[in-house]
Amino acid sequence: MTRVFTDPDLELPALMPLAIEAVEDALLQRARGAFISPPRHAVQIGGAGDLVFTSGGGVGGQESVAGFRAYTTFSSKQDDQLVAVWNVETGRLKAIVIGSLLGAIRTGAIGGAAIRHLSREDASVVAVIGSGLQARTQLEATVAVRRVRDVRVFSRSTANRHRFAIEMQERIGIPVHAVDTARAAVEGADIVLCATASPEPVLKLEWLVPGVHINTVGPKTVDAHELGIDIAAAARRIVTDSPAQLLAYARPFFLAGTPHLERVEDLAGIVAKSHAKDAVGPAHEPDDITLFCSTGLAGTEVVVASRIADHLESGG
Amino acid sequence: MTRVFTDPDLELPALMPLAIEAVEDALLQRARGAFISPPRHAVQIGGAGDLVFTSGGGVGGQESVAGFRAYTTFSSKQDDQLVAVWNVETGRLKAIVIGSLLGAIRTGAIGGAAIRHLSREDASVVAVIGSGLQARTQLEATVAVRRVRDVRVFSRSTANRHRFAIEMQERIGIPVHAVDTARAAVEGADIVLCATASPEPVLKLEWLVPGVHINTVGPKTVDAHELGIDIAAAARRIVTDSPAQLLAYARPFFLAGTPHLERVEDLAGIVAKSHAKDAVGPAHEPDDITLFCSTGLAGTEVVVASRIADHLESGG
Repeated sequence: MTRVFTDPDLELPALMPLAIEAVEDALLQRARGAFISPPRHAVQIGGAGDLVFTSGGGVGGQESVAGFRAYTTFSSKQDDQLVAVWNVETGRLKAIVIGSLLGAIRTGAIGGAAIRHLSREDASVVAVIGSGLQARTQLEATVAVRRVRDVRVFSRSTANRHRFAIEMQERIGIPVHAVDTARAAVEGADIVLCATASPEPVLKLEWLVPGVHINTVGPKTVDAHELGIDIAAAARRIVTDSPAQLLAYARPFFLAGTPHLERVEDLAGIVAKSHAKDAVGPAHEPDDITLFCSTGLAGTEVVVASRIADHLESGG
Repeated sequence: MTRVFTDPDLELPALMPLAIEAVEDALLQRARGAFISPPRHAVQIGGAGDLVFTSGGGVGGQESVAGFRAYTTFSSKQDDQLVAVWNVETGRLKAIVIGSLLGAIRTGAIGGAAIRHLSREDASVVAVIGSGLQARTQLEATVAVRRVRDVRVFSRSTANRHRFAIEMQERIGIPVHAVDTARAAVEGADIVLCATASPEPVLKLEWLVPGVHINTVGPKTVDAHELGIDIAAAARRIVTDSPAQLLAYARPFFLAGTPHLERVEDLAGIVAKSHAKDAVGPAHEPDDITLFCSTGLAGTEVVVASRIADHLESGG
């Protein structure tokens, strides 16, 4: 019998570490060529908008799973997403997840995997720019992989950033302060999480300290990017979870036409290297600035949903 | 809240007439250009097989709905299919159907719409070749649109055809006889339902009577076809639910390279004509042989699932 999960089932904080492990395993499979993440597929529904599919899965691991996320771009208020997971060996549709939370958890988990491999091991001060669902799950993923002791959040709305601070402090059990400027959040931070919808850079290079890791989940096309090219220029490493998806944006990636585009690395390779037997420590020097550009690697929804379903099915 | 239905929910005989109405409405929308049925989309999952999507929907009718059917071609025993239906105006994922029954009901319903418009109104004797799920739903659809008084079934397995006869007689309340040869089933029948997996013709032209309607849901490619080209040659009208899908088969359609290919008509046009205000009776003369080649018009799963969900939600 297929299990069906909805947003309330996914509200447990305990799910984020599981989701990060699922993404990390997916990245290792990807490095071996055993993770499937074909280009997204969109079907035009008259003039109403599109039905969009991102499919994928991993074969040959502990359990081979495949499936997809489907979502719509209708101009409707509601936007019910659907994730479906098949066990490839048995043909069983093992789980269905309906709602918007899984997508945010999965994007958080990708961020968590990036932060684990690209930030300083002793990173403890986190800046958050943005106060929406993505900002929440990015922060939750950060505290799952680093010993965070202080979080500063800025977003344009005073009410929103205060609500974020109160709710997230309660959720993660670490002090979260709402601050009045992006600068106050970013200065001195070891990890900067950018999760806005801003078409213009939300932080300045001069605010950053050596060794900072920056993570962008917001816009990053030539005509709308929440981070400036100067930040990418200053970064020793620029990493993404899917170079192919980043190059397939409807509008060009914000580093197109700059010398930095060809420096973009695949997170899968970095994760694989750090898991290799002859791994020789972290992927960067302590003072390197690192930048992670999250694209939402297709197929990760499927493996995250699968892992969460296993956990919830076994009694949560 | 999204409603989730599985095979046991769909076992009511009362659902077939609803499904036929949903398909008929879809065909009318299609004739107006308001029904969406893009080409299927397949994603290769390593060497395991494909994840296949047939999407579509109808916009601008009583309710605009869109969605898809997803199924796998893994070499697994189980083959869980998933149909998802969104309301285009609200963005709500209104229903999910898991299992294999909906696909068979929808194919039955397409057959039912074809039989309503292509068979003699007084057709009463039905031959069934094949005894699987598709044969069952084709027969169920036939009795929903014609006053059937006698059914003869043949399939290669004696046990299977007898089980079919017993179970379907019980289900439709009309005598169903298992017979020992295809010929005994077909001779004198007004409607012949071919629902086999046979790569070779299962009946001979000489067995057919004038005015017979033949319906094929089985193989119909150049290298595997359950009906011979001679049957198509004898047919006054050759009709399909999707000329585009028929031309997009991985192997060519069995009439490719014959003069009959260009005679193939779209069922939507025939249905629209019969609904037009100046409709002048049936689409053919009483003695015409007609042939329907079912391809499974994409998007019909969605409208059938939507209609069934509405019915079951309102208390069945």
